[in-house]
Amino acid sequence: MQLARIVGTVVATRKDDNLRGLKLLLVQPLAPDGRPSGRSLVGVDAVGAGVGETVFFVRGREASFPFLPRQVPTDATVVGSVDHWSAGAAGGRAPGEKQA
Amino acid sequence: MQLARIVGTVVATRKDDNLRGLKLLLVQPLAPDGRPSGRSLVGVDAVGAGVGETVFFVRGREASFPFLPRQVPTDATVVGSVDHWSAGAAGGRAPGEKQA
Amino acid sequence: MQLARIVGTVVATRKDDNLRGLKLLLVQPLAPDGRPSGRSLVGVDAVGAGVGETVFFVRGREASFPFLPRQVPTDATVVGSVDHWSAGAAGGRAPGEKQA
Amino acid sequence: MQLARIVGTVVATRKDDNLRGLKLLLVQPLAPDGRPSGRSLVGVDAVGAGVGETVFFVRGREASFPFLPRQVPTDATVVGSVDHWSAGAAGGRAPGEKQA
Amino acid sequence: MQLARIVGTVVATRKDDNLRGLKLLLVQPLAPDGRPSGRSLVGVDAVGAGVGETVFFVRGREASFPFLPRQVPTDATVVGSVDHWSAGAAGGRAPGEKQA
Repeated sequence: MQLARIVGTVVATRKDDNLRGLKLLLVQPLAPDGRPSGRSLVGVDAVGAGVGETVFFVRGREASFPFLPRQVPTDATVVGSVDHWSAGAAGGRAPGEKQA
Repeated sequence: MQLARIVGTVVATRKDDNLRGLKLLLVQPLAPDGRPSGRSLVGVDAVGAGVGETVFFVRGREASFPFLPRQVPTDATVVGSVDHWSAGAAGGRAPGEKQA
Repeated sequence: MQLARIVGTVVATRKDDNLRGLKLLLVQPLAPDGRPSGRSLVGVDAVGAGVGETVFFVRGREASFPFLPRQVPTDATVVGSVDHWSAGAAGGRAPGEKQA
Repeated sequence: MQLARIVGTVVATRKDDNLRGLKLLLVQPLAPDGRPSGRSLVGVDAVGAGVGETVFFVRGREASFPFLPRQVPTDATVVGSVDHWSAGAAGGRAPGEKQA
Repeated sequence: MQLARIVGTVVATRKDDNLRGLKLLLVQPLAPDGRPSGRSLVGVDAVGAGVGETVFFVRGREASFPFLPRQVPTDATVVGSVDHWSAGAAGGRAPGEKQA
């Protein structure tokens, strides 16, 4: 999985039937120091996440697991909201905390 | 999933039987600011998308879900047509809108 | 999927039993303008493709679909031979056509 | 799989039900010479690994295999703790050993 | 799949039960000209390959196919030993042959 921040939403009226009723989020992956890292992508929400929230998301076949037995065609799903994380010598951090 | 623009089509007479009757699209991934980002690829259409349209597509095993129980050998499928999206401070955008 | 050109073949006597009898191709991915793009890889042939031919191939779990119910351990399979493709303002192209 | 070092932990109270009770680790991939290589990611622990430990992890669909029949939505799981490895002319190394 | 050279081995006493008894190899991907290309990784051996040997390996879900019905959590498996390969104008090559 990857740490990420929710940076937007996507609205699509015409879409695959198995995506109906699901929230589409614009997701920006983060490095452990909290900075954006790599390309943002479109993910499906599985935990009620909103814009500005720090989360982690899963890619690939497993991204459809939270919706089983429905076969949702998603390859990226937000599966957790992050309380805080620690990384190496940098010690513990809360999502909103500034980099020292 | 990734935001993308349909930039062309691919015609292939000789192909795997489970691809017959499906439209092959040339798909250019987009960054949240609407600019091309990364390599274009060949995707299968699942929502009736056409050239110039802004869409999102799914990769991997899930790309074959819209065609189940047919086992279509596709790793990229267009599963939604985008009405508009919002990204960070940039606010809401419609697919055809110019970057400010 | 990705556009590609068949640029060679691979011969392997000692291999997994489920790969026996299948042709192994050296595959060079192409950009929409017909130029090589990214690393070449080893793919299994599912359409009778030969060296010099323009094709598209599928990656991942779906690469084994053309051989079901045999569980072929391949992550890249050539599933179509390209007649021609169109890309943006460049208009239609046949595989052998030179770039203007 | 990839060699990696455990560099931190992630705490998430609100998460997919099938992730409950599992330890989330911050994992830094390593090159064969023992140096960090590529982006760190969030992985699930399947072997009781702790911060500072050298491990290898598996990506993709297989990352959920250690937890079957539970369908854990993980795309990265630590599946082994490394005693030592050898790489080319450099000879054998133990995880904590300095690069010559 | 990708061409590769076996450049080392990995020893791990504590690991997922379904990896027990399998040989872990350090695998360096190769470009068609025989030079190293991209990051090396840890793969499971399915053909009895040894250090210095030229092989090809499969990634992803298919990497576990050679071990079915055992659900081995591997995302990279060596499935063939290469006798020789040909690439474009360069003509045929045997694995140990020097680049002209």
